[in-house]
Amino acid sequence: MHIDPSQRSAAHNYTLLTNLVIPRPIAWVTSISPGGIINLAPFSFFNAVGGDPLYVVVSIGQRDDGSPKDTANNLRSGSGFVVNMVTEELMQAMTVSAADFPPEISELGPAGLQTAPSLRVCAPRLAAAQASLECNLHQVVELGSNTLFIGTVVMFHVADALIDDQLHVTGFAPLGRLGSPSMYCRTRDRFNMPRVSYAQWLKQQT
Amino acid sequence: MHIDPSQRSAAHNYTLLTNLVIPRPIAWVTSISPGGIINLAPFSFFNAVGGDPLYVVVSIGQRDDGSPKDTANNLRSGSGFVVNMVTEELMQAMTVSAADFPPEISELGPAGLQTAPSLRVCAPRLAAAQASLECNLHQVVELGSNTLFIGTVVMFHVADALIDDQLHVTGFAPLGRLGSPSMYCRTRDRFNMPRVSYAQWLKQQT
Repeated sequence: MHIDPSQRSAAHNYTLLTNLVIPRPIAWVTSISPGGIINLAPFSFFNAVGGDPLYVVVSIGQRDDGSPKDTANNLRSGSGFVVNMVTEELMQAMTVSAADFPPEISELGPAGLQTAPSLRVCAPRLAAAQASLECNLHQVVELGSNTLFIGTVVMFHVADALIDDQLHVTGFAPLGRLGSPSMYCRTRDRFNMPRVSYAQWLKQQT
Repeated sequence: MHIDPSQRSAAHNYTLLTNLVIPRPIAWVTSISPGGIINLAPFSFFNAVGGDPLYVVVSIGQRDDGSPKDTANNLRSGSGFVVNMVTEELMQAMTVSAADFPPEISELGPAGLQTAPSLRVCAPRLAAAQASLECNLHQVVELGSNTLFIGTVVMFHVADALIDDQLHVTGFAPLGRLGSPSMYCRTRDRFNMPRVSYAQWLKQQT
């Protein structure tokens, strides 16, 4: 079946897009307002997009009334932001932080969370997160109802238990975001599928 | 533990980033060269980034020798591209398509796949994909070793079995990309976690 988005409502198109482009990684973003209020909110229009330098994107939609979300305002202020990853023990707190708190209220208290200082950016990280990426704002791209924030990763924080001697990550299983309105997946059902080079593929054919 | 990317090699930083920003959705991109060769390759620096209009990003790294990949050249040509989603039965074919075939060889034959015509863009879609998104190139952003392609989604294709009367998607379980070099996750271990509004949260406190 084909579905032409030009013939459908924006709400339907959004639902379709978010049910098809899955699983999405979740950026649980800490940012800080010019007045010093620490904001915390989850976003799944998020991914790594650059290896050298290290870049991530976080795309933030408008509020229902068309105004910008607190996180978007804070990111524009240039004080940096932190992408904290969401593992299952933090799920309840993440859900609380997703509520539409007014800008003068930090989500940290209601979510029962504490921060730890960042090393390279003003915005703090979540103390309880197993992995956090400190980011500086690199570029902003306006995309209709969304604003795409491109950040440079300037510091990694990873729980000691997840890192071995060679700094390899093991046993890290953050949640993935599935379709709207509120489905998530775990990531422990895994498998390894090595790729083959063109030379190896040619050899297999003979 | 904190890890400062400025003190580490690009290869190590890339590995760390791709092991922490997970699970990543996979764009299995069909594109067409100016000479008519259909290219097929998977990319996990991919996500939805816009709801109205509908936008996706696909970030493509350079080859090891610094030259652009075939998909990047094709996307720049402006003939559109299709993001096909990868479900488990297509995994073996996806792995073959990831090999570094020379530009004059289409990955379709080696991967044992056929295409179906697209409705809005020149690049065809994969006939076997359960879901495909036809995209027009909207904007290109250079990000060091990567190029970020922002596409507008102009047509959805979804297998009939996945769509109900109200055009809701059910039972769709594409694979997610985990850490390098070659780990993937399934997405059937799911749960629902409804969000609460600020008003609902306030009510719960009294």
